[in-house]
Amino acid sequence: MSVPYVWRTRVYWEDTDGGGVVYYANYLKFLERARTEWLRERGYSQAALAADPGILFMVLGVNVEYRAPARLDDLLAVSVQYVLDGRTAAIFSQQIHRDGIEPQLLVDAQVRVVCVDSKTLRPRRIAEYLQ
Amino acid sequence: MSVPYVWRTRVYWEDTDGGGVVYYANYLKFLERARTEWLRERGYSQAALAADPGILFMVLGVNVEYRAPARLDDLLAVSVQYVLDGRTAAIFSQQIHRDGIEPQLLVDAQVRVVCVDSKTLRPRRIAEYLQ
Amino acid sequence: MSVPYVWRTRVYWEDTDGGGVVYYANYLKFLERARTEWLRERGYSQAALAADPGILFMVLGVNVEYRAPARLDDLLAVSVQYVLDGRTAAIFSQQIHRDGIEPQLLVDAQVRVVCVDSKTLRPRRIAEYLQ
Amino acid sequence: MSVPYVWRTRVYWEDTDGGGVVYYANYLKFLERARTEWLRERGYSQAALAADPGILFMVLGVNVEYRAPARLDDLLAVSVQYVLDGRTAAIFSQQIHRDGIEPQLLVDAQVRVVCVDSKTLRPRRIAEYLQ
Repeated sequence: MSVPYVWRTRVYWEDTDGGGVVYYANYLKFLERARTEWLRERGYSQAALAADPGILFMVLGVNVEYRAPARLDDLLAVSVQYVLDGRTAAIFSQQIHRDGIEPQLLVDAQVRVVCVDSKTLRPRRIAEYLQ
Repeated sequence: MSVPYVWRTRVYWEDTDGGGVVYYANYLKFLERARTEWLRERGYSQAALAADPGILFMVLGVNVEYRAPARLDDLLAVSVQYVLDGRTAAIFSQQIHRDGIEPQLLVDAQVRVVCVDSKTLRPRRIAEYLQ
Repeated sequence: MSVPYVWRTRVYWEDTDGGGVVYYANYLKFLERARTEWLRERGYSQAALAADPGILFMVLGVNVEYRAPARLDDLLAVSVQYVLDGRTAAIFSQQIHRDGIEPQLLVDAQVRVVCVDSKTLRPRRIAEYLQ
Repeated sequence: MSVPYVWRTRVYWEDTDGGGVVYYANYLKFLERARTEWLRERGYSQAALAADPGILFMVLGVNVEYRAPARLDDLLAVSVQYVLDGRTAAIFSQQIHRDGIEPQLLVDAQVRVVCVDSKTLRPRRIAEYLQ
């Protein structure tokens, strides 16, 4: 398991729904933003990777447990860790906590991602982009 | 001004925000779905148009007045009318009403759209796709 | 397992991302729209249920497998089936197929939902709303 | 006209559409995030304001010109300036630039906002929250 990376984001009106909490699909946006910023910190822009060497990361599956709801103005800490899953895929373990002195776990997720050729969509070796 | 076309859609949880009403950006989704269905009724799929003859419709500007809020489960009637604006653009006049025996006007919008080449993004003649 | 219900929806520009396919979080919107329409067919509006008898359905977890991508203009058939999971929860089994003569499975999902009091958020008996 | 405030945000996959650029409705999310952060800098949380003194900001209208498209990974600088519009409303002038050595104007918008009572939705004096 890789060293954990943590990225922070806020909850805005756009994220909430009429129940007064974050809409269940929108947590997947927070998870993806954190994976993207984690890649960026390693020096990889996904727009650049798609052009050269011509690869994309595709999500194959997600497993999400909603433990407690996030609300408007909450500051969220989204973590990123991974293990390789064969030659072309990786499983990301990600948690979303409400940030603060006593962080509260809101979402616990596993996201399976495969590295593919941006033209042919055939699997490509993933390891070099995750180190 | 063209003959008005009306298309109906529902308000789901995803469309509402923590204020209990539809989030202001999401009405623009309803407007676009209606323009897309209006084109489809004329026999034009945007995915097909992008491939052959290779054109896209790009929004240049919107002017939206929010008269009253839509809420969860509301059935909305979204109208589409247009006038040509030169050779390559059109101005769509669109209203969103809460449907029912006494429809209530919720949103009044003008949307300026230009027809462009899907490769070069240079303006192309629009009229033939709007008739 | 309940009798399957199927609801159809289109893919619009708003649903796609820069990869040319539906963004992975947006399939969860399609799943929820289908659950909402399935409830509506049984005579239950969620806005009305929240007021009287004062209940909401909260998603506790999702498990989603992405088998093939949906694209702009695709007509999707979203299915809804459930089994009770104790007194207050249910597990929905939902598939998204690209509709057509030979439907293609795009997404396979399980969604665990609990019925709660809309004020206190304490669990409430779910069975009567699912029959 | 108030002193300009500028807030930065990134373009993620969720913001783009199948045309490879940011979907036209999503710029309104960036505009709202910037207004929210501008209020936060002045010490106002909208969640707190809704509870005490019990006010909300409602958008009455938007006028948006799309000058050039934003793309995946772009860093955007979103500005906020306002003038009062009577006792209860304000007009925000907001621009979105692609950030960099030579910033490029992407979106030019005016957003008319009214301050209302969070219970009755009747207009309330706005000036004190904007200073």
